[in-house]
Amino acid sequence: MSMFITLEGVEGSGKSTLSASLASAIEKNGGSKVLLTRQPGATPVGKQIRQILLDTKNTSLVPRAELFLFAADRAQHVEEEIRPSLARGEVVICDRYIDSTIAYQGYGRGLDIEMLNKLNSLATGGLNPDLTLLLDLDPKLGLERARNRELDGATQWSRFEADELPFHQRVRDGFLNLATAERARFVVIDASVGKDEILKSALSAVTNHLRTRC
Amino acid sequence: MSMFITLEGVEGSGKSTLSASLASAIEKNGGSKVLLTRQPGATPVGKQIRQILLDTKNTSLVPRAELFLFAADRAQHVEEEIRPSLARGEVVICDRYIDSTIAYQGYGRGLDIEMLNKLNSLATGGLNPDLTLLLDLDPKLGLERARNRELDGATQWSRFEADELPFHQRVRDGFLNLATAERARFVVIDASVGKDEILKSALSAVTNHLRTRC
Repeated sequence: MSMFITLEGVEGSGKSTLSASLASAIEKNGGSKVLLTRQPGATPVGKQIRQILLDTKNTSLVPRAELFLFAADRAQHVEEEIRPSLARGEVVICDRYIDSTIAYQGYGRGLDIEMLNKLNSLATGGLNPDLTLLLDLDPKLGLERARNRELDGATQWSRFEADELPFHQRVRDGFLNLATAERARFVVIDASVGKDEILKSALSAVTNHLRTRC
Repeated sequence: MSMFITLEGVEGSGKSTLSASLASAIEKNGGSKVLLTRQPGATPVGKQIRQILLDTKNTSLVPRAELFLFAADRAQHVEEEIRPSLARGEVVICDRYIDSTIAYQGYGRGLDIEMLNKLNSLATGGLNPDLTLLLDLDPKLGLERARNRELDGATQWSRFEADELPFHQRVRDGFLNLATAERARFVVIDASVGKDEILKSALSAVTNHLRTRC
């Protein structure tokens, strides 16, 4: 049975780690085929867009241009990968999706949230996640983690990490507001605990969701 | 006195040639400083976006992703270049702007025109041209010209030129519909005649516009 799961959270909250372990746990336990993917940058076109978004030299990138680049990546990704995978009955796990736009560009950069909702809906053709796991973490801790990861050469979010801490605090608050507003879709997971415990919470959220759906 | 002029038309209609000669004629006659620019690809960020849009390898680019890439380029361009230039009292001549989105993505690719108008307005912050010169040409002739230009190594629009003739015919009809709907802003110029005659028509359109404005 197809299912669309998104992972959201501030930089360094452990989304990549969780998405990989969640994918292999679901494949092992449920036997479902899993598409493990992310935004931005999953498709060939998306990779080119991601280059622009993350390039630290692009300091002049204005908020609305940034917003449209994410929308372009998302439209391409939904049509080229996510919808076909769901249509084949697979489980899709996507690292960041529509809620990142609301949290980063809305709460973080101050763009109008109603407008962002419309844009998300246009970019996705109305495809919403069945379940969203919010990895909640103090952004101070998250940025530290992300910067350490960067020293290991695994950097990906440089231009966003360069933003100030208050920006990331607004992003975290934004995610929490979204989770409160859409209780049926969101499960908030404390991301300050160990990896195993986080995976356990995520798996139980997936199981609960499937139970309510059946 | 600042003035925002856009040039629109199908591939090979002579926009680049006219924009250059119009710019130097205005600078010479009127003494105004002119910003000669184009969409997509005027800003550093825009150049990276333009690469994606025109790359013939990106055959999988879906219409909505293409649309958002143009919007990103436009938002960046308006904020980084066009508004500051107009604020300095300059004349801005821009090769392609909002009407290309309606003609290509709306009439050409079939996206919803009302939605495109909203997106244009969002990308430009509501900045409309004072005057739009539509270089009207049979697209069959235009594509021939564009392809010959390509043989000279000056290619820029490869991915769009690869579209079929009926697509470009819909684009031309779209431009003509827009010109009919907004008579106060548009001047339609026959682009099948010689360069000098086209420049003369364009200059007289600029003069007429200034006269009605004063």
